Amino acid sequence: MSIKITFPDGAVREYDKGITALDIANKLSNSLGKKILSAKINNKVCDATLPINDDATLELLTWNENDGKQTFWHSSAHLLAEALESLYTGVKFGIGPPIDNGFYYDVDFGDNVVSANDLVKIEKKMKDLAAQKSEYKRQEISKADAIQYFTEKGDEYKLELLDGLNDGEITFYTQGNFTDLCRGPHIPNTGFIKSIKLMKIAGAYWRGDEKRKQLTRIYGVTFPNQQELDDYLLMLEEAEKRDHRKLGQQLQIYTFDEEVGPGLPLWLPNGGFLIEKIEELAKKTEDEAGYSRVRTPHIAKEALYLRSGHLPYYAESMFPPMELDNVKYYLKAMNCPHHHKIFGAIPKSYKDLPIRLAEYGTCYRYEDSGSLFGLMRVRSLQMNDAHIYCTKEQFEQEFRAVNEMYLKYFKIFGIEKYKMRLSKHEPSKLGQKYINEPELWIETEKMVRDVLISSNIPFDEVPDEAAFYGPKIDIQIYSVIGREFTLATNQVDFAQGRRFNLKYVNKENQEDYPIIIHRAPLSTHERFIGFLLEHYAGNFPLWLTPKQVAILPISDKFLDFSTQIANELKANGFRITLDERAEKIGKKIRDAELMKIPYMLVIGEKEVENQQISVRKHGKGDIGTFTIQDFNLLLQKELEN
Amino acid sequence: MSIKITFPDGAVREYDKGITALDIANKLSNSLGKKILSAKINNKVCDATLPINDDATLELLTWNENDGKQTFWHSSAHLLAEALESLYTGVKFGIGPPIDNGFYYDVDFGDNVVSANDLVKIEKKMKDLAAQKSEYKRQEISKADAIQYFTEKGDEYKLELLDGLNDGEITFYTQGNFTDLCRGPHIPNTGFIKSIKLMKIAGAYWRGDEKRKQLTRIYGVTFPNQQELDDYLLMLEEAEKRDHRKLGQQLQIYTFDEEVGPGLPLWLPNGGFLIEKIEELAKKTEDEAGYSRVRTPHIAKEALYLRSGHLPYYAESMFPPMELDNVKYYLKAMNCPHHHKIFGAIPKSYKDLPIRLAEYGTCYRYEDSGSLFGLMRVRSLQMNDAHIYCTKEQFEQEFRAVNEMYLKYFKIFGIEKYKMRLSKHEPSKLGQKYINEPELWIETEKMVRDVLISSNIPFDEVPDEAAFYGPKIDIQIYSVIGREFTLATNQVDFAQGRRFNLKYVNKENQEDYPIIIHRAPLSTHERFIGFLLEHYAGNFPLWLTPKQVAILPISDKFLDFSTQIANELKANGFRITLDERAEKIGKKIRDAELMKIPYMLVIGEKEVENQQISVRKHGKGDIGTFTIQDFNLLLQKELEN
Repeated sequence: MSIKITFPDGAVREYDKGITALDIANKLSNSLGKKILSAKINNKVCDATLPINDDATLELLTWNENDGKQTFWHSSAHLLAEALESLYTGVKFGIGPPIDNGFYYDVDFGDNVVSANDLVKIEKKMKDLAAQKSEYKRQEISKADAIQYFTEKGDEYKLELLDGLNDGEITFYTQGNFTDLCRGPHIPNTGFIKSIKLMKIAGAYWRGDEKRKQLTRIYGVTFPNQQELDDYLLMLEEAEKRDHRKLGQQLQIYTFDEEVGPGLPLWLPNGGFLIEKIEELAKKTEDEAGYSRVRTPHIAKEALYLRSGHLPYYAESMFPPMELDNVKYYLKAMNCPHHHKIFGAIPKSYKDLPIRLAEYGTCYRYEDSGSLFGLMRVRSLQMNDAHIYCTKEQFEQEFRAVNEMYLKYFKIFGIEKYKMRLSKHEPSKLGQKYINEPELWIETEKMVRDVLISSNIPFDEVPDEAAFYGPKIDIQIYSVIGREFTLATNQVDFAQGRRFNLKYVNKENQEDYPIIIHRAPLSTHERFIGFLLEHYAGNFPLWLTPKQVAILPISDKFLDFSTQIANELKANGFRITLDERAEKIGKKIRDAELMKIPYMLVIGEKEVENQQISVRKHGKGDIGTFTIQDFNLLLQKELEN
Repeated sequence: MSIKITFPDGAVREYDKGITALDIANKLSNSLGKKILSAKINNKVCDATLPINDDATLELLTWNENDGKQTFWHSSAHLLAEALESLYTGVKFGIGPPIDNGFYYDVDFGDNVVSANDLVKIEKKMKDLAAQKSEYKRQEISKADAIQYFTEKGDEYKLELLDGLNDGEITFYTQGNFTDLCRGPHIPNTGFIKSIKLMKIAGAYWRGDEKRKQLTRIYGVTFPNQQELDDYLLMLEEAEKRDHRKLGQQLQIYTFDEEVGPGLPLWLPNGGFLIEKIEELAKKTEDEAGYSRVRTPHIAKEALYLRSGHLPYYAESMFPPMELDNVKYYLKAMNCPHHHKIFGAIPKSYKDLPIRLAEYGTCYRYEDSGSLFGLMRVRSLQMNDAHIYCTKEQFEQEFRAVNEMYLKYFKIFGIEKYKMRLSKHEPSKLGQKYINEPELWIETEKMVRDVLISSNIPFDEVPDEAAFYGPKIDIQIYSVIGREFTLATNQVDFAQGRRFNLKYVNKENQEDYPIIIHRAPLSTHERFIGFLLEHYAGNFPLWLTPKQVAILPISDKFLDFSTQIANELKANGFRITLDERAEKIGKKIRDAELMKIPYMLVIGEKEVENQQISVRKHGKGDIGTFTIQDFNLLLQKELEN
């Protein structure tokens, strides 16, 4: 008997009943078969070795798919456990999931003493076991048998996990001599795991409960080849050098203060400068794109958030209320409700649309203090926000223009790798999880997809992950060293117009609701400047850097000429700092290098005599002697690029 | 025997003991004698007819001095009471003080029915009585005699007022047939009051207590000549036309929303545009003046405001706290504490000073809902704030530069009349009301005074009204129609540096505290734009107006040419609106006039044929036909002015 398999590109092929995804891959090409880690069958990630018995949709998952990677790392956690069990007696295992960058396993080592020094030995054992190409074998098992197995093994952690499971949903996976309670899926065999690095060892309470036993957590990362591991470790090393918290302090970008509060950055003058420059760019760009700028307060009555629906559902992410004249006021966690009020303040006709309201609005969100992280996770967010109110007919063009704005910014900031993720609705859940506008969903999702394709933007589609009120587009960007950042989320919104009663009179002279696009291409200042610090390693391009030129007189004797040079450059619009301190020139150069100022002018006897300047470039050293005119030209040329 | 009188200019003259200020004025010049309303003797405002028996300082007060005006209006309130008593029987009087623009008297009319219709009759009686030139006679009286007088008269209100007074501090004033319990001072006689206007009649509870009797409050204003009254009434009429709340709505500048909250303006695109333009000007100006821009959150922990001293003393003007992780957070009511934290974040030497930290920071202040008024009294304030940290040696130059910035702005916005008010310390209260830095007080007050004099800025000096931590300078400006606005307050601050432990290393290599100047020349956006709306009557100058040119096609047929014109003007940087509606041209012109758009281009058959445009100027009508190049030139020229 044969079954029909539908592939992501829409192609349908017939295969024998009971075929596996791995078989199919091998039939398609021998090299593909070697890359298959798992498979998405009818949208569920499964073992590539699972027999398929009915017609199904199939997506083959390799290292290039996130789900494939997760399978790979999950199997690597099992490999770690196998290695530990073969090295140490009496070890018991908690949980061992894949994470964003690798995996971990929580282990009770019993009487064994294990430290960071042992990681190399464990890695070695993992490599040996991987070389054996042991298959990951799946076995469905009854709860009674499973309990018996772990009772005999003496692993109370697995027994506790079993406690929460029911007959019919319990599976074991075995590779080599190691068997684990696991839902799967796993890769075909351990041989796929070619390179292994155990990163660190830490303590972790069982089930995250600090009243329970502390287990040992071992973090690791694995790759299908050595080159990827080498690249990854290099990237980590580079990322550490580029740590935005370190650079943020060194370059005097921002600071935190105990009396102001955690997660509330104070932007020092250099950071304030970056913010102004970025806003200047945003305002110019949005101005040219026909946006109007508005200003709204940072607070509003509870009533506003009840209307928008943020209260009570989003209350945990908001700051607690202030009670004033018997009314609760909230700090805004988003700008949209205020903007909707502005749209609604004056009656509109279709001739007034699209209306694009922009504001670098500061929002406040509650994050628990443990999850705050530099500029990346904060409580105050200055957002490159705008809301576009348009008709259905205008939507495609508006969405395209938003995309083009992203691409424009990517080019300006040298962001070469990016990806979007289109979260769509699920038709069977219309009217429940999703607003009941079946045609509008299909239409806008198609328009979004078409625009992404025609703009050549790489994207994934994810079903059943849209917001209640419309499709969602997440934008991921990669820094120059390949680290991934979530830049922003675009939201298509069919619902808020109704909630806020935002009507316009359409061509047919009837009242209608606008579609609303929420967008923030430059993210928040906090996140974007955090990203830029890593991306540029603090070496901001000349147009953006707070100080462009440091003038370094060798001694006070040359202060007059130095001041004259400074004034000439300032008059030409350049941003200059003059180091008047009574320090040695070596120290002045070192300090300017540390501040990553692109150009340093060393002024001494010879320079004054020849009325010239000796120019050093940051990180490169001396680049020769210039007349002030030539140096001006050099700067101007660099700015033009 | 003779006494020595010291005049404000420092001149000392000798007079006979017992001479009055009025006698002295008459001796100085006959015309001066006719203008003297009261006199400041040893810094206390007194009757001009009070005998002076000892050496004293003397300032003669005329209509030009605020204290003189207040005396005049206080005496006018007595004149009103005299008129009422002669017109109605059985009237009793509450209080009758001078106010900002005139005076009122609260009256119990008993069985008489008095309405707005009667004001003309009362005015007429007041004028008759004024013409009698009755002297205001002062009489010291014992409490017993005073009680007897008002008991016989049957005025329970005055009796209640007497209740709170002690023997030795009770005086009566009598003019004509009317006697009042009054501390004074008063003008020499009713003849000074040449023009009178009773403005309105209202209800007012006795002692402001709504549980007590409602009296009738009659408001009036008087002047020393008819011309001033005419001017004042014209100004009021003009002010009503220019009411910023009316214009704010008409020009779509801002709006309030019930669900956002009272006193929290939402700035519509036209208001957002004004804000951006004003900030652009401020940033450019401050950039050129060596300010650094910073950004700070809108909230901080209670600890910050306990350190600054705003808590608990200023708590009533702040929003109530939000409690988060067991810590109280407050919305900031001022930016200074945050800026101080930025100053303190990085160690400083004298070579780093002055440091000028600028931020258009939004502050939140609690005003009770009854006192909210359009943009003039709000709860959210976007402030043109900056703090200058300097050494004592730098103070004078820094203060002068701040003043010059004010004058620069006054010129840009056509503010021709302005005044500063220097509030000084009182040496006897050093260490109590004022921080104990005797030399610093004298030194900085002198520097401030010298700068004001040399900058030709009119100013008053007020002793004993400084802040705890330094002299205060209030800036009053006048709109084109002569209404007074408090623009901003500059503060010299010797104390916050200590509270925040803001040290720098001085030339002598010792730690020292900077002097801090708080300044906000462009006030808050709310107040300043409110002022500008009145000042310009909504006719913003070309550089500032949201839309510069409205293009008005007579019909759809001319839309192509209209769009072409619009694009050409936009390409030249002008701000254009194109009226595409299917309305008659008359309606389009009326609407553009209502929006006070400076130029309107009417595009019809003739214009398309000749490739020219017909130009209308707002409020002026047709100004002729132009080529697009010539019109461009006209706009450019106007912008250059």
